[in-house]
Amino acid sequence: MFYTVEYIDDKLSILDCQKLPAEEVYLTLETREDVFDAIKKLKVRGAPAIGVCAAYGLYVSTRNVEEDFDRVFRETREYLASARPTAVNLFWALDRMERRYEEVKNLPLCEIRKELLREADRIYDEDAAACRAMGEYGLELLKPGMGILTHCNAGALAATKYGTCLAPVHLGQERGYGFRVYSDETRPLLQGARMTCWELAQDGVDVTAICDNMASIVMKQGKIDAVVVGCDRMAANGDGANKIGTSGVAIIAREYGIPVYFFVPTSTIDLDTPDGDSIVIEERDPEEIRSMWYEKPMVPEGVKTYNPAFDVTDHKYITAVVTEKGIVYPPYDVNLKKLFEEEN
Amino acid sequence: MFYTVEYIDDKLSILDCQKLPAEEVYLTLETREDVFDAIKKLKVRGAPAIGVCAAYGLYVSTRNVEEDFDRVFRETREYLASARPTAVNLFWALDRMERRYEEVKNLPLCEIRKELLREADRIYDEDAAACRAMGEYGLELLKPGMGILTHCNAGALAATKYGTCLAPVHLGQERGYGFRVYSDETRPLLQGARMTCWELAQDGVDVTAICDNMASIVMKQGKIDAVVVGCDRMAANGDGANKIGTSGVAIIAREYGIPVYFFVPTSTIDLDTPDGDSIVIEERDPEEIRSMWYEKPMVPEGVKTYNPAFDVTDHKYITAVVTEKGIVYPPYDVNLKKLFEEEN
Repeated sequence: MFYTVEYIDDKLSILDCQKLPAEEVYLTLETREDVFDAIKKLKVRGAPAIGVCAAYGLYVSTRNVEEDFDRVFRETREYLASARPTAVNLFWALDRMERRYEEVKNLPLCEIRKELLREADRIYDEDAAACRAMGEYGLELLKPGMGILTHCNAGALAATKYGTCLAPVHLGQERGYGFRVYSDETRPLLQGARMTCWELAQDGVDVTAICDNMASIVMKQGKIDAVVVGCDRMAANGDGANKIGTSGVAIIAREYGIPVYFFVPTSTIDLDTPDGDSIVIEERDPEEIRSMWYEKPMVPEGVKTYNPAFDVTDHKYITAVVTEKGIVYPPYDVNLKKLFEEEN
Repeated sequence: MFYTVEYIDDKLSILDCQKLPAEEVYLTLETREDVFDAIKKLKVRGAPAIGVCAAYGLYVSTRNVEEDFDRVFRETREYLASARPTAVNLFWALDRMERRYEEVKNLPLCEIRKELLREADRIYDEDAAACRAMGEYGLELLKPGMGILTHCNAGALAATKYGTCLAPVHLGQERGYGFRVYSDETRPLLQGARMTCWELAQDGVDVTAICDNMASIVMKQGKIDAVVVGCDRMAANGDGANKIGTSGVAIIAREYGIPVYFFVPTSTIDLDTPDGDSIVIEERDPEEIRSMWYEKPMVPEGVKTYNPAFDVTDHKYITAVVTEKGIVYPPYDVNLKKLFEEEN
């Protein structure tokens, strides 16, 4: 079975996602340059996976430092944090490692190293537990034999295990649920075709690749009983930003009476953002539409392109939000807040 | 200015659509093998353009025949009809040429040839007039400066001039309407990116290529005032089969309150088909999704694909149907029929 990022036999090893689906290649990351390069070049991608990789990466790339450890550790932390400037989980994981370091920095060096490895293990374990919990909650919403449509990849390839919205699919597979999954290819970067199809096929799940514009016909034909997607940021009112195209899928699903489930770790819920209108949408390189993947450009020279990376799904199209702490139903402006209040 | 299929200086000349957008290459078709190959390999595509090409093709490839004309003419007709087995306009145009031949076959050979050329000219002229009429009616629905979304290519590259749903865009451009057009790339065959963007850019229209899954965000952002699409077959109740993805675009547009206009020559309206459920959807080669255009396969080996070529848009999502005889509004089951009754 594949894995995305693991610390095994004293080594940090990742699956090179950029080589999928053509090749399944694992890389051992030893130096800080190795770790930086893996994150920078999207060999490891997906917020949870990046965080875990950065935490272990900070440990492995400093564990042989015998002199001037404090300076080298902090430099390495800074260096790794610069690999992807907008990846929140990257900073979050490195900050946790640094906080732990502050707590133990007066211990002998061998003890410091042990504590850093333990902290990275905890980050890993917490992510695995959150994914598993979302999987279990997700299975409360899904019945054996259901047809499930997903968009982009919020799966095991984006996390430690199971993923977010694909967690119930993987768990269901272990339990013989026999889901039939339809995966939008997810233009322009094709994460659905390249990654979701690959990871589900590895797990033996019945998966079918479709172009994004085929979601409507498979829903109309009765092939889809539920839509499951991840989320990049959810506002306080339940509006959810996710990979471009998610809002269209959700609108079409509602029209056909098909439930839409967003899988959202609580770390992704931002109560300080009142609604989706406050979420700035990143625009990406036109070449992703124009020529990436193709042997020659498919959009004529001089024609403009528009390439938003995300869109916002209005909360009214979201049937339920699945978090690691439980399932949240509308009204989201009230019930998402409760999720955090119960914590205290 | 480009053209799609023209008879000029005693020669049948076509634009090789397969080379777009990289190259604008015109081919002169002389033999029946030339014509067969052009239709078979989609060098000429789009129902009206195929019909016109076949009619002129039957004429040019038999015009030098001096002996045994009747046999050669009929053989050539049969041969050309086999170029694409499901292209209704191909048979329709060849049948018209054959009917004309039957009427004039007792005239001297030089007169027969003249009459065959005249019939091909008439097929051309009728298509050009129908496109122009749809353009004029379409402009009754569109205001200067509007943002227009289109899907696939029902443009000049699919007909003699103007096209169907792009006819008002081209006509509007001549009159300084300043439309802003968004063209879905239209996976898997990318007719939007490759053809619609190319023909509109050639005409100086402000056109922007987007991936299919971006239709929802541009509508939400207020960039779109109307959706215009062609139609491959419209049932008696107004359900319209068109390129895969059209139904999703129409559902999303209705959700945002944006009108959806289907451009449908009356030859495409099939009163014998009661509704969209009776329309069989062609499934195409999985390689179009899996690997076509790409340097290496992007869907993993062994993963299934589903590749329907068309979907059916329920009539309730269609705001108006534009034909060469006028604009039809709901209830379509009553008003489409009237269109044909008025004729008699």
